[in-house]
Amino acid sequence: MHRHTFTDRVQFADTDMAGIVHFSNFFRYMERVEHDFFRALGMSIWDKAAEIPVEERVGWPRVHVSCDFKAPLVFEEEFTMELLVVEIRSKTIRYLIRFWKQNGELSAVGQLVAASVRRDEHGKLKAVPIPERIRQRISVAPPELLKLD
Amino acid sequence: MHRHTFTDRVQFADTDMAGIVHFSNFFRYMERVEHDFFRALGMSIWDKAAEIPVEERVGWPRVHVSCDFKAPLVFEEEFTMELLVVEIRSKTIRYLIRFWKQNGELSAVGQLVAASVRRDEHGKLKAVPIPERIRQRISVAPPELLKLD
Amino acid sequence: MHRHTFTDRVQFADTDMAGIVHFSNFFRYMERVEHDFFRALGMSIWDKAAEIPVEERVGWPRVHVSCDFKAPLVFEEEFTMELLVVEIRSKTIRYLIRFWKQNGELSAVGQLVAASVRRDEHGKLKAVPIPERIRQRISVAPPELLKLD
Amino acid sequence: MHRHTFTDRVQFADTDMAGIVHFSNFFRYMERVEHDFFRALGMSIWDKAAEIPVEERVGWPRVHVSCDFKAPLVFEEEFTMELLVVEIRSKTIRYLIRFWKQNGELSAVGQLVAASVRRDEHGKLKAVPIPERIRQRISVAPPELLKLD
Repeated sequence: MHRHTFTDRVQFADTDMAGIVHFSNFFRYMERVEHDFFRALGMSIWDKAAEIPVEERVGWPRVHVSCDFKAPLVFEEEFTMELLVVEIRSKTIRYLIRFWKQNGELSAVGQLVAASVRRDEHGKLKAVPIPERIRQRISVAPPELLKLD
Repeated sequence: MHRHTFTDRVQFADTDMAGIVHFSNFFRYMERVEHDFFRALGMSIWDKAAEIPVEERVGWPRVHVSCDFKAPLVFEEEFTMELLVVEIRSKTIRYLIRFWKQNGELSAVGQLVAASVRRDEHGKLKAVPIPERIRQRISVAPPELLKLD
Repeated sequence: MHRHTFTDRVQFADTDMAGIVHFSNFFRYMERVEHDFFRALGMSIWDKAAEIPVEERVGWPRVHVSCDFKAPLVFEEEFTMELLVVEIRSKTIRYLIRFWKQNGELSAVGQLVAASVRRDEHGKLKAVPIPERIRQRISVAPPELLKLD
Repeated sequence: MHRHTFTDRVQFADTDMAGIVHFSNFFRYMERVEHDFFRALGMSIWDKAAEIPVEERVGWPRVHVSCDFKAPLVFEEEFTMELLVVEIRSKTIRYLIRFWKQNGELSAVGQLVAASVRRDEHGKLKAVPIPERIRQRISVAPPELLKLD
């Protein structure tokens, strides 16, 4: 799978005194569609299933994130996030996330690069190759989906 | 010790579209003065010091919290939290936290009851007696401090 | 209407290093079911509809909130909030909100008292009688719904 | 002025179940040093001073932000943010923000591009030239400060 969408509604606590969604919340929203993508693939971003041995579990901290803001989201507005897989490398996945307003306008475009990590014997996070059980379910989106206009 | 104060400044992301601090943030603020109280006592709310064996560490989840709101806090405003120990029971501590605005006005009064807990062999949180190393550093505030006006 | 439910899922950013939902987020969740209650009544907690003249709009700041915590919520868990109207006074509404875990266990019980307010000519928030257009759609829950076991 | 630092401490609510600061909070932190930079210049990011006529006030929404994560921040850790002005254009300012851990290690490097905006007659946000009263207090950091190693 290379594309996933998730529709949510702006909550009051997500707004700030400028009357719009605080920019930091776009990153919380991005994480929401990313995690829902994993659920849609029959997995969890937080490996906990009994069938996955502890030593094969991985976590997904971010190594890079960015966001370009085009049009604000406001209280109670429904918006749809469109996640696309841009690149899969040995230890990282890069996602593009578009935020669509209810009126069809583009609100923001984010990017998120997550690394597959495991704690080593000293408890330090260390990037490791993406486990095959995850890798095989994810594919890169075709270029035409990644272009805007 | 039975009293501790902490002064902070309202951040932009703490406000909401009503132009004031979102009420849920008063609880984040309360936790700040509580944790600073522990640091002032030479401890951490999160037992991690090498000298504390794992089996003696405790956590402090909340069993009850409340807040009465009197006057809003606004962006960039400095405010002072005044924490008072109201009650110490075998497994819980009850705090009162007053929020003072820069102009001396009372903004809010919160209460927080935290329980001393440890994970049992099944990983379930279980209330345990407050460890003596913590108990001996905390005392109940005299009644005259707990009364307002 | 005197009862409303809303089901949500715990997001990763709502958890803290203790591995459970941070207690302050229960208040954000409570607000969610409250606002959804208003939407279910065909209104918005933030009066903005063209048909409501500016001078008749009200806001709903909290004057009192509390929460008793029984069992933690964890990442990705679905939970259901059950809102009940406990009391309607001339200028305030008191809600009870129960948090139900997926397994039917009670996670937490919150209370929220919101006041109907309007800004006076000096820009200060002032409690005002609940507008009739709102008052007529809300009723107090029968006592048997308010009792637990 | 082209450089400003701000030291803060990680709060419990800023952590997530992975035991480290949730990545979205780095953006809240960035905003903190940006706003403190404005205060250090004798201004506020939120124009409200009586001496600034309403029609000359500007806001600073973000048009682009990014962050590269190098080493996590943990609970109670003190960290220092170092803000540098990278570029000043007619309507935008670009900042670089470095997060330094207590041990001198670089935790993260963020960028934030804020636009000077005003609401037009229809209430829509519109980028406007940075007011001279602000422009004259800010300068671009020398290139040697912007390079790492």
